[in-house]
Amino acid sequence: MTKAAATESLKIIPLGGLGEIGMNCMILEYADEMIVVDCGLIFSDLDHFGVEFGIPDFTYLRERKEKLRGYFITHGHEDHVGALPFALKSGLHAPIYASNFASLLIQERFKEYGLTETAELRPFRMGQKIELKHFKITTVSVNHSIVDSAALIIDTPVGKIIHTGDFKMDPTPFVGEEIDLKAFGRSGEEGVLLLMSDSTNVERHEHSMSESIIYQAFERLFAAAEGMTVVSMFASNVARMAQVFELAGKLGKKVALAGRTMEQNTRLGAQVGYVKGVEDVLISLDQVGNYPRDRIIVLSTGSQGEYRSALLRMANGEHGQLKLQQGDLVVMSSKFIPGNEKAIGRMINNLFKQGAEVLYEAVHDIHVSGHATRPELKKMLELVKPRFFIPIHGEYRHLVHHAALGRETGVPDANVVLAVNGDVIELTPESCAITEHMEESRILIEGREGNDISKLVLKERRQIGETGIVFALLVRNAETRRIISGPEIISKGLAAEGTEGFLIEEARDVARRVIIRYEDELRGGAVHMDLQEEIRVELRRFFNANLGKKPVVLPVILDL
Amino acid sequence: MTKAAATESLKIIPLGGLGEIGMNCMILEYADEMIVVDCGLIFSDLDHFGVEFGIPDFTYLRERKEKLRGYFITHGHEDHVGALPFALKSGLHAPIYASNFASLLIQERFKEYGLTETAELRPFRMGQKIELKHFKITTVSVNHSIVDSAALIIDTPVGKIIHTGDFKMDPTPFVGEEIDLKAFGRSGEEGVLLLMSDSTNVERHEHSMSESIIYQAFERLFAAAEGMTVVSMFASNVARMAQVFELAGKLGKKVALAGRTMEQNTRLGAQVGYVKGVEDVLISLDQVGNYPRDRIIVLSTGSQGEYRSALLRMANGEHGQLKLQQGDLVVMSSKFIPGNEKAIGRMINNLFKQGAEVLYEAVHDIHVSGHATRPELKKMLELVKPRFFIPIHGEYRHLVHHAALGRETGVPDANVVLAVNGDVIELTPESCAITEHMEESRILIEGREGNDISKLVLKERRQIGETGIVFALLVRNAETRRIISGPEIISKGLAAEGTEGFLIEEARDVARRVIIRYEDELRGGAVHMDLQEEIRVELRRFFNANLGKKPVVLPVILDL
Repeated sequence: MTKAAATESLKIIPLGGLGEIGMNCMILEYADEMIVVDCGLIFSDLDHFGVEFGIPDFTYLRERKEKLRGYFITHGHEDHVGALPFALKSGLHAPIYASNFASLLIQERFKEYGLTETAELRPFRMGQKIELKHFKITTVSVNHSIVDSAALIIDTPVGKIIHTGDFKMDPTPFVGEEIDLKAFGRSGEEGVLLLMSDSTNVERHEHSMSESIIYQAFERLFAAAEGMTVVSMFASNVARMAQVFELAGKLGKKVALAGRTMEQNTRLGAQVGYVKGVEDVLISLDQVGNYPRDRIIVLSTGSQGEYRSALLRMANGEHGQLKLQQGDLVVMSSKFIPGNEKAIGRMINNLFKQGAEVLYEAVHDIHVSGHATRPELKKMLELVKPRFFIPIHGEYRHLVHHAALGRETGVPDANVVLAVNGDVIELTPESCAITEHMEESRILIEGREGNDISKLVLKERRQIGETGIVFALLVRNAETRRIISGPEIISKGLAAEGTEGFLIEEARDVARRVIIRYEDELRGGAVHMDLQEEIRVELRRFFNANLGKKPVVLPVILDL
Repeated sequence: MTKAAATESLKIIPLGGLGEIGMNCMILEYADEMIVVDCGLIFSDLDHFGVEFGIPDFTYLRERKEKLRGYFITHGHEDHVGALPFALKSGLHAPIYASNFASLLIQERFKEYGLTETAELRPFRMGQKIELKHFKITTVSVNHSIVDSAALIIDTPVGKIIHTGDFKMDPTPFVGEEIDLKAFGRSGEEGVLLLMSDSTNVERHEHSMSESIIYQAFERLFAAAEGMTVVSMFASNVARMAQVFELAGKLGKKVALAGRTMEQNTRLGAQVGYVKGVEDVLISLDQVGNYPRDRIIVLSTGSQGEYRSALLRMANGEHGQLKLQQGDLVVMSSKFIPGNEKAIGRMINNLFKQGAEVLYEAVHDIHVSGHATRPELKKMLELVKPRFFIPIHGEYRHLVHHAALGRETGVPDANVVLAVNGDVIELTPESCAITEHMEESRILIEGREGNDISKLVLKERRQIGETGIVFALLVRNAETRRIISGPEIISKGLAAEGTEGFLIEEARDVARRVIIRYEDELRGGAVHMDLQEEIRVELRRFFNANLGKKPVVLPVILDL
């Protein structure tokens, strides 16, 4: 395309996904127009403190919301779409452009949040061109662990930008076409100003495996099954689901679904024609008992050992309809997401205790990754031949390694930009540089109501969760200022029962001594001490001496 | 040896280590004699709730402490010795038999706990025989990631038992001899009744790598260094430490130590002659600036991203004497212990942000495991040819896989016993079976004082840490029973500041309405409600409706 005359620089602001795996969200802003690529959430490792996930801080967008022309969603994973309901609820309305399957998933999520009326969802085909005033976005089909994944070629007044989304190069995906490498090659020929490319698997040296190798592995396992086979996977992996259904048909087996999202996505996958033959083999969980055990395949959620998931309940012997037994096989066809290893490990041990055999990545090849490895990333860089390169979608170390790979393939050292969340990158036809950094302040979301909690609340929870809490209550005469009742000491989570009684008794004496000093001052006519603060300090000192830790101490004085 | 006539069965009771990696501790009891093999702790993933580690419940031992004749320690790792101070403090005194280096580490620990006077430490040589009344214990040298590791051949009235401890087969350990396979072979010829063998790496198919390959990898890295090289490893890995010192001497470099245990173990390693040439190359941290940067090697603790560890402080730019910069190299020469991945990942990202290059297991071969893999485990089974087999030292799934391997090598199906912590296994010359199960109740330890906390305290901390806590205070006239002050509502960790004020105001109204009902009943002459409980229930209901969660609510009524 002929380059429009750029009168100013284009701003690129990653709100998430650069320096972490998750919460992908990037603003592209030129003059009076702004688009957002992906709008995802990040699952939290603070779930001990009630935090379910984090979403980007939309302040920058809210302050310029009249410029917002659209969300462009590369695919339907939660770390690319999960924050959309929160963006919309905070008033950031704009058309949402997403592929077929991503649109279906987004729609399901909007139903939950009661947003179907307000949201403007615009499904796109692969290869479609969406023309805004300054941005012309062409969607390109790529391979990934969810069907209908897209990269974006974005023509802008400063030049052509490619955002790969999440991708791998799979010559034989089970569903859909191979990644459209020609489109990337053509862009490379036309001249690409900036490539932003997925860094997740830059540390792996072998070419990623094709989704289709799963077929052979599953076929061997299903054919040899002596009992029930349970396959756990991400419910969004429709291509893998499709393989299970096809194999079930071929081998004369039945498939039952465990887990709400598994049911939803089977329905959606069948609806768009990606999952075939469902009606022939699908049975309900209630019907499992009607068939010989070795003819049953259960597709289950819970591959990460999630609380209350179907597989975890099976592992703990708490699933109402599915009881594992000797001879059963559990196939965990997914990666262990970092941070979940302990929970998954516990679940696997418990599955073994139920008598089942369990196959997982460490012991059997039953999963392939959805992300490009080094050779594929190199090929992308070579096809696109970008002038500037920004590694995206990765922890900081992945970005560093990907940046080095960019240099190896010939991008000049100064043209490789190592950016992180909150950086403001300014792009012109001749330059690409970080010009500003906005302090990143993600929003933490808890509970089913989706309330956000502040850093302060989290800090308080950490404190009381780690050390317990002690309340010290006093009642004071509002007129005479004399203490008329208390100190009453109440604790929660402080120390083992045996020692607690004795400690509380002693603590009361500590507080009493402070009160005696206070009343002395009172009788003297001038109170200098801050009674509340004095009690807090003395009690913390007391507990530190006796327990080696300082609990949260909250003295309360009621004036009567 | 000639078998003594067995008049009764021998009891084997694993208190820890079977069904988990950590807290290894096993009781062997025959007639009036009892020995304990290892006495370790397990690091906790409950550190959010103040729990530092867990130790075995010693109740069974305490109830029979007059029978206790000795602790036999296979090696000096914390998961094999860390609970000794707690055993001694709870009155379980007996000689502690341990290898040279293990004895030194135990002694250091006893100094901290003020136990050097009471503890009776008896260092053993490899191949030594320790004769008790019924138990005759022979120590056998094995390879592991700490020097002076032993297996135990235990002759008992029922027959010969082999406990491998942690082991691998290393033909070229950097320090010490190859594992004494002949001793195992001789036992096999004499007839082994029971083998108990390390299951940690049963899922790995390749023979473990020799410690000595580290030498070549380190030499290449050290020689090519352009800046400072930081090597992090477990401070107990003296053989690896010795390689670093030898290479430093060879390459004309200096070694500085970061971390207290690194200093301690270098001193101990030099003391017993395992680490050589220390005086020639060791410099203090203060001297680092006096040498060209590429001549400095820092040996550092913190390979697991531990809080306040030397490496973590370097990563966060908070180390007083060591600042990383472009050109520096960090070599993480240790495995990522499951559960620590997130913390380690964060640290690695931050090391990169300091400008350093970081090498770790995923990207570079700079660590070898200390545990035998499948081929070695098979060889052990084949050498020993046990009549009965119990897999030990592993999570449940490792035990299952190791049990299967035992069957593959010819141990009859019925002679493979899959036992877990708390099982009571009875062994006779003709049988080996689980006859009882004691409910396992490990003790959770918190803080520097080593206080144990109960399950109840942990539960309370979990609750208040996850949802926050709300106090509701009332003052009541003790005579008239009327409420004279309150409700006062105080919360900690409940909700974001914006919403909290409003919520607390509303919650006060909720409590007020309960009080009005209470006072109505009071005026009616008969109070039926439990005021405290009613307030608790109503407030929890209110918060659940407004926040989608039920915080801990603690109503307190002060009678004046």
